[in-house]
Amino acid sequence: MSVLELCDADVASVRVEVSAADAIRLMLDRHVGAVGVVDSEGRVAGIFSERDVLRKLSLTGRNPELTPVRELMTTPVELATISTRPGEALAIMLERHFRHLPVVDNSGKLLGMLSIRNLLEQRIDDLSHELDSLEQYVTNDGPGG
Amino acid sequence: MSVLELCDADVASVRVEVSAADAIRLMLDRHVGAVGVVDSEGRVAGIFSERDVLRKLSLTGRNPELTPVRELMTTPVELATISTRPGEALAIMLERHFRHLPVVDNSGKLLGMLSIRNLLEQRIDDLSHELDSLEQYVTNDGPGG
Repeated sequence: MSVLELCDADVASVRVEVSAADAIRLMLDRHVGAVGVVDSEGRVAGIFSERDVLRKLSLTGRNPELTPVRELMTTPVELATISTRPGEALAIMLERHFRHLPVVDNSGKLLGMLSIRNLLEQRIDDLSHELDSLEQYVTNDGPGG
Repeated sequence: MSVLELCDADVASVRVEVSAADAIRLMLDRHVGAVGVVDSEGRVAGIFSERDVLRKLSLTGRNPELTPVRELMTTPVELATISTRPGEALAIMLERHFRHLPVVDNSGKLLGMLSIRNLLEQRIDDLSHELDSLEQYVTNDGPGG
């Protein structure tokens, strides 16, 4: 399975030029905890998340309508590509304490946004299926079968 | 396993009287996405989360130092107790789209805060162990053993 299949069909993103308020409105509209911030070519410039709002805006008294999202976004140090396996992405996110990881193409263009929650849920599905198959094998062909 | 074992040892909470700014500072200090809001007896009055900051504060222009957390908190409709099983808590949270669920004692006193992430990680651990045991059984005693 490609990591892209674990992303929302239509990735939530804003251009670097927009205000933090516009990015917050998009997060609220789309019920997501983070949006990708992209340049005019669609390449990832950063991520803007609920955590950024909490850390860099909520206590500052700054007006989000007048604050460019560029000044508050987190610059991602890690990116996934379509060839990153879900297990790899999950390991990176657990280790680095990321909740979101952008998926990009070869030119750095944003294709999707992975969330740790989707990856954890997928892992549970995979393990449950493996367990079911193995249980079925034991029941049908095993010592007691 | 009790749900309490899946909570942080020392639950992050604030009194209903404090400002939203105090609650935000606690979230930042403790690296958590939500704090419990409790009355003078320690009973849960609500939860205050990053999502509440985004939805009810970030675009309003309100000063968080002058805004009581009570006015922005979410009143929980669901609570877990020490007898709630982790699987039950996870089902509630997935179905209702909660990220956090307070654990209370019989008098409604806050004992801990469950996060969906901790529950998902625990479920993965449990499934992995089950799978390991079953694989070991198949290897040692099964048809090929």
